[in-house]
Amino acid sequence: MQAIVFDGEARYVDDYAEPQCEQGQACIAVESVGICRTDLEILQGYLGFKGVIGHEFVGTVINGPERWLGKRVTSEINCPCGVCGFCLGGLGGHCPNRSVIGIVGHDGAMAEKIVVPANNLHKVPDTISNTEAVFIEPLAAAFEILRQVDVNLANTVVLGDGKLGQLVARVLKPRAASLVIVGKHAAKLDAAEKQGIQGCLLEDFHPTGETDIVVDATGTASGFKLAMKTVRPRGTIVLKSTFAADSGINLAPIVINEITLVGSRCGPFGEAIRALASGDVDISAMVSAQYSLQQGVEAIRAAANGENLKVIVDVK
Amino acid sequence: MQAIVFDGEARYVDDYAEPQCEQGQACIAVESVGICRTDLEILQGYLGFKGVIGHEFVGTVINGPERWLGKRVTSEINCPCGVCGFCLGGLGGHCPNRSVIGIVGHDGAMAEKIVVPANNLHKVPDTISNTEAVFIEPLAAAFEILRQVDVNLANTVVLGDGKLGQLVARVLKPRAASLVIVGKHAAKLDAAEKQGIQGCLLEDFHPTGETDIVVDATGTASGFKLAMKTVRPRGTIVLKSTFAADSGINLAPIVINEITLVGSRCGPFGEAIRALASGDVDISAMVSAQYSLQQGVEAIRAAANGENLKVIVDVK
Repeated sequence: MQAIVFDGEARYVDDYAEPQCEQGQACIAVESVGICRTDLEILQGYLGFKGVIGHEFVGTVINGPERWLGKRVTSEINCPCGVCGFCLGGLGGHCPNRSVIGIVGHDGAMAEKIVVPANNLHKVPDTISNTEAVFIEPLAAAFEILRQVDVNLANTVVLGDGKLGQLVARVLKPRAASLVIVGKHAAKLDAAEKQGIQGCLLEDFHPTGETDIVVDATGTASGFKLAMKTVRPRGTIVLKSTFAADSGINLAPIVINEITLVGSRCGPFGEAIRALASGDVDISAMVSAQYSLQQGVEAIRAAANGENLKVIVDVK
Repeated sequence: MQAIVFDGEARYVDDYAEPQCEQGQACIAVESVGICRTDLEILQGYLGFKGVIGHEFVGTVINGPERWLGKRVTSEINCPCGVCGFCLGGLGGHCPNRSVIGIVGHDGAMAEKIVVPANNLHKVPDTISNTEAVFIEPLAAAFEILRQVDVNLANTVVLGDGKLGQLVARVLKPRAASLVIVGKHAAKLDAAEKQGIQGCLLEDFHPTGETDIVVDATGTASGFKLAMKTVRPRGTIVLKSTFAADSGINLAPIVINEITLVGSRCGPFGEAIRALASGDVDISAMVSAQYSLQQGVEAIRAAANGENLKVIVDVK
């Protein structure tokens, strides 16, 4: 089958082996795939992944359990073992034996077909287009913040105007007392302002150390340092993206200012699906380009361009 | 008056100017002073403090508001301005204009007399000895954890067998499902085990990444790294002591494992006083040595000896 495969470099191939669908699994004919920052990091060698990339996707089930056949679906990305202490304790998303679709030991979705555990599937309502559906996984990650932190009546700042920061701002905006998204790109901030979200260029942002909740979605050490300057004493920093170890990280202010730092990763698909179906979250200004599967490598290059937000590969 | 003064080195002097007691302040004849790690850091240049050191103390009010005269008291250490946004917002402990007794811009207690804001005073019950009373301030810092994290039914590990780790273990032990204190010093672990607290030598501690709550009271980067290995996914690390910036700190696991990191500093004096008065917390095994004020420099040397727990200076 056709696929975009990474084995040191990203390549389009038309002879990748079709995935085998076993008991408890579902085979999905992929329709659209979103590209996110993790994909770009994988192409830089992150986690040593090799195989088909892509984990934000929508498609139709063509093989597997009867009740899923013909259904338009997306899939959670963590595939837990189901039998270890973490899984039995309700922490399957942190199962040490898990594979992660397109990230750890499990071929991803930038291909004609993908096989995933049937337990991971979520039905996608007809009112959500394929273009919207590829946002379900990252939007769920944004909703995770609401499960971790009480944003009601909080003054909030989102650092980072990229894809994840944009989604976080859209989720928090109607719930927080105030929200500002800070970033380097005027065009990206415009995309947020189209949704009534106040944007601020980084060069114009002067933290006063009085913000209740700061979400760091920059993925940079300098972003984290800015978050430390922005948050108030006894405030909360939500760390939404990772960055490499850095020599300048000083955690002393965490203690002195009694900051709470909350690591936040994957989230609830159900809430993301409901928000897209109801129109509560509008991602229309966030799609920068769409490519065919054959143009997948070009799509990745476009996604790596800092001026772009979401780049989508439409498989069919 | 006699005092232990730091101005680049710690010295005993007998001609230090008596503090002036103004409106709203109280002058206290100091009876006992505890030495903590912050004092030792100040002697290394921390915060650039110069003056009388010491902030864990007990004494008797000899001048100031009528209702306090003759009372045996201790004092909170943060002296907020009372008028800024932080103070008016209930965050006086984080007032940017505050002085901190014996730490920032305010002479400390290792002297015959000290003047503090009367608002900072707490009466010390007769059932609490001077030796116990110098533990009120650090014990309050240990109780702070209970205001920040729900330790009920949690498996907990306290990293660090020093003074603060010992107090934290004593506060958490009756509330947690399990508790182990980990440290490098057999004698210090013995002091904890006398209170029914399970000790474990660092060399015998093998973290499995399954602990609900880890309190890092080591004050070292290696302690923080060990905390990251010890805590379970979605668990909590309480950062109870600061350490210098380190090149090896990698915050990516905070996100990947969805860890919550809680900075924790000063705490509620009332709860510490009640716990000492009721005998719920027993610090009797934690006093390593007691010195006179004239021997204050020698006392500091003893406090810097890693084999010792609390060293106390008895002023009278």
